[in-house]
Amino acid sequence: MSGEDAPAQQQNAVDQKQETKPAEEPKAEPPKTESAPAGTAEAAATPAATTDKAPEEETFTYRALVLTGYGGYDKVKLQVKKGKPALKAGEVLVRVKACGLNFADLMARQGLYDRLPSPPVTPGMECSGVVEAVGDEVTDRKVGDKVMVLNRYGLWQEVAAVPASHTFLIPDGMTFEEAAALPVNYITAYMMLFDFGNLRPNQSVLVHSAAGGVGIAATQLCKTVKDVTVFGTASASKHETISSGGVTHPIDYRTKDYVEEVRKISPKGLDIILDPLGGSDTHKAYNLLKPMGKLITYGAANMLAGQKKNLLAVAKNWYHQFSIHTLSLIQGNKSVCGFHLGYLDGETELITQAMNTILDLYKQGKVKPRIDSTWHLEQVGDAMRKMQERNNIGKVILTTEPMPEEEKKEETKKEDKKEDKKKDDKKKEDKKKDDGKKEEKKDDKKKEEPKKEEAKKEEEKKEEAKKEEK
Amino acid sequence: MSGEDAPAQQQNAVDQKQETKPAEEPKAEPPKTESAPAGTAEAAATPAATTDKAPEEETFTYRALVLTGYGGYDKVKLQVKKGKPALKAGEVLVRVKACGLNFADLMARQGLYDRLPSPPVTPGMECSGVVEAVGDEVTDRKVGDKVMVLNRYGLWQEVAAVPASHTFLIPDGMTFEEAAALPVNYITAYMMLFDFGNLRPNQSVLVHSAAGGVGIAATQLCKTVKDVTVFGTASASKHETISSGGVTHPIDYRTKDYVEEVRKISPKGLDIILDPLGGSDTHKAYNLLKPMGKLITYGAANMLAGQKKNLLAVAKNWYHQFSIHTLSLIQGNKSVCGFHLGYLDGETELITQAMNTILDLYKQGKVKPRIDSTWHLEQVGDAMRKMQERNNIGKVILTTEPMPEEEKKEETKKEDKKEDKKKDDKKKEDKKKDDGKKEEKKDDKKKEEPKKEEAKKEEEKKEEAKKEEK
Repeated sequence: MSGEDAPAQQQNAVDQKQETKPAEEPKAEPPKTESAPAGTAEAAATPAATTDKAPEEETFTYRALVLTGYGGYDKVKLQVKKGKPALKAGEVLVRVKACGLNFADLMARQGLYDRLPSPPVTPGMECSGVVEAVGDEVTDRKVGDKVMVLNRYGLWQEVAAVPASHTFLIPDGMTFEEAAALPVNYITAYMMLFDFGNLRPNQSVLVHSAAGGVGIAATQLCKTVKDVTVFGTASASKHETISSGGVTHPIDYRTKDYVEEVRKISPKGLDIILDPLGGSDTHKAYNLLKPMGKLITYGAANMLAGQKKNLLAVAKNWYHQFSIHTLSLIQGNKSVCGFHLGYLDGETELITQAMNTILDLYKQGKVKPRIDSTWHLEQVGDAMRKMQERNNIGKVILTTEPMPEEEKKEETKKEDKKEDKKKDDKKKEDKKKDDGKKEEKKDDKKKEEPKKEEAKKEEEKKEEAKKEEK
Repeated sequence: MSGEDAPAQQQNAVDQKQETKPAEEPKAEPPKTESAPAGTAEAAATPAATTDKAPEEETFTYRALVLTGYGGYDKVKLQVKKGKPALKAGEVLVRVKACGLNFADLMARQGLYDRLPSPPVTPGMECSGVVEAVGDEVTDRKVGDKVMVLNRYGLWQEVAAVPASHTFLIPDGMTFEEAAALPVNYITAYMMLFDFGNLRPNQSVLVHSAAGGVGIAATQLCKTVKDVTVFGTASASKHETISSGGVTHPIDYRTKDYVEEVRKISPKGLDIILDPLGGSDTHKAYNLLKPMGKLITYGAANMLAGQKKNLLAVAKNWYHQFSIHTLSLIQGNKSVCGFHLGYLDGETELITQAMNTILDLYKQGKVKPRIDSTWHLEQVGDAMRKMQERNNIGKVILTTEPMPEEEKKEETKKEDKKEDKKKDDKKKEDKKKDDGKKEEKKDDKKKEEPKKEEAKKEEEKKEEAKKEEK
């Protein structure tokens, strides 16, 4: 996952053209994001390379999602790139089948994640696929291997050249969707709980966003240890699902004070708290720790309010950012840890160890990624929206499978409606500001959006769950 | 270890009189520390208690060390107390044989440790001895049991009433000195390394003051895990001892920059750092951590400069006190923990678990407390000085064994010399301020001090070690 090894294909992109969404030209953006001066710099080197290569290398094209500038969902565009990515020693070329969406991708789109180079750039930290070619010095991967990939960025495209050490063999029986859903969430949850957290039998854990990707992974991993009590926050409609997934005490953070709810059941506090929120929630978490308790903070989701960078939310998060003196830690016998897989560059050994353990647990049937929904590359904006608006239960996945023609037509119709939608979004955001954290399910939105069958089924299940609750 | 259960005998002390050091009357102190108004408050209750008791209870006397006010080594005085401590339900009366000295006791004497009630009060967090009486509801201890005791304070005296749950049976073959040396240092080292630190094979650990009580315990515990590399700081004369005790890379912090020394051997940094120093050393430690590294801070020894509270040292420590933002933790994938056994009140289960594991390791011959020297209660000042001036290798122990008459006479002679010595100390402290950290061995002092044979042997060993180095 070192940045230096990152997507060769990105740099090879000599000719970038926009495939879809002609109506979506960035308004205030200089043309550089589309004509890619970053690519031009590489252009001098490319002809030399191509003379040595088969003509196929030149005619080779692939679709790639590209972040063209910081901002809303529409800043990620589908483009067609030309030229087969050249493999460096130690790299493999992966034909990507499915990609995972992560919170860091949402932060990155708003310019809040410094591990992603400046636009234009292809995001994506994890994917699954099939090895299509192997570079020199690669001994443990061969053409045809089904792999999952973890990389700093650059995986939301049809082919990706990545270091072989960033790939892991997909075990029998695991789908490409599951494989794309596993790396980031499970390694994150595993390292937090078992390295920093040192989770042991009889302990208690608070998992925020328990219906999210990391939340579900963390809950499953907690259940691999004897008699661990899991407190999980999620909106009420998701409680049934997370309960059946292993959460002992689901808490609706939208209607209840989670600190009070935890104290009612565990007056002394908790052994481990996983905090993806940041800001004032980190303070709450710290005070909710038992002696010898561990607070593991791994994000600042509180900074994400609305589609575009919300300066107020960012400032608020900074203002409330948790800062701790050692004397307080000593007197409280507490531990505060920070985790982000994106900053674990070069720790291949640690990551591989964690992954091997996770895959063993998968084979034993103890963990299994839960897919919320799968979207075509063209639908990346809607996929991101679903995640950011916390309407998912489990992982949001992109598939590289071509979109059926009839669905494409639907998409085009949607494009026409985009302007209206934007206005609508604007209204919603304004409303959200008034309502505070109270978010409403956008039922109307759901109806108009085409989904893959799997996603539809999930929706239906949730609808049923809601009905049952009523 | 809960404060509420603390020394009943302290409160029973109706009549306190000073036994030794008549020349040592505190100069600027109001008489209250000697006539003990804190005791007077209890006096009303005591007669009622004594009427129910056998006459022995009234004639019962015992010697106790009492902190009479904050300040230098002479603030801890030996007094004789009257009246057998009454046992509450769940308590046992322990006839104390040996007591351990800890850094917290030195801090407490200067008024820098808030877990010790205001003077007059008997310090002492650990001791060993024999159960002399058991209170109601005590089922797992009986008269004659050899025990070690861990308490918030009040153990530097000949008898102590303590909760039975704060006692642990001494295993066969362990001396009373070893038993008094074990609880605080080994539980501290154990919980830091294995709870917060989550120490695993092949990791690297930095142990500051590797020749101190916690340092030696930590080194021994590190060696129970496969292929752990221990970096240990100590002055050069102690290197041979700590090396043979398990330190892989001894570092003379007085002549070398320990950060540079560590980086030479381990360029990526360390997995675990135990930091008893505080202040700017905590910053250095943080920067020296590997990704997924854990900094465990457990003291502020840098605040201790000289006999009395040194406002400059305290202010400096506060000024440099480490404060950390979560964003830095996240981007570094680091953990910062604080530990102090004195604040783990009521965590009897955690402590008992740790203690049981440590005693198992002792029985397997994997850990063994190292005694630096043993001192009579009358010599507590010199014992504290030895520790504070970092002249010890291992644990400094007090014994309740009566001091032979001839040694007492020596002590009296010393008392006469005290005034000179004080002037001498003052000079030394002034010198120290100029020299910075350069501390000199006080060879002249060594010669004039009577020691128990064990202590003498240690000294001889060290002399030899020094000669070999020259």
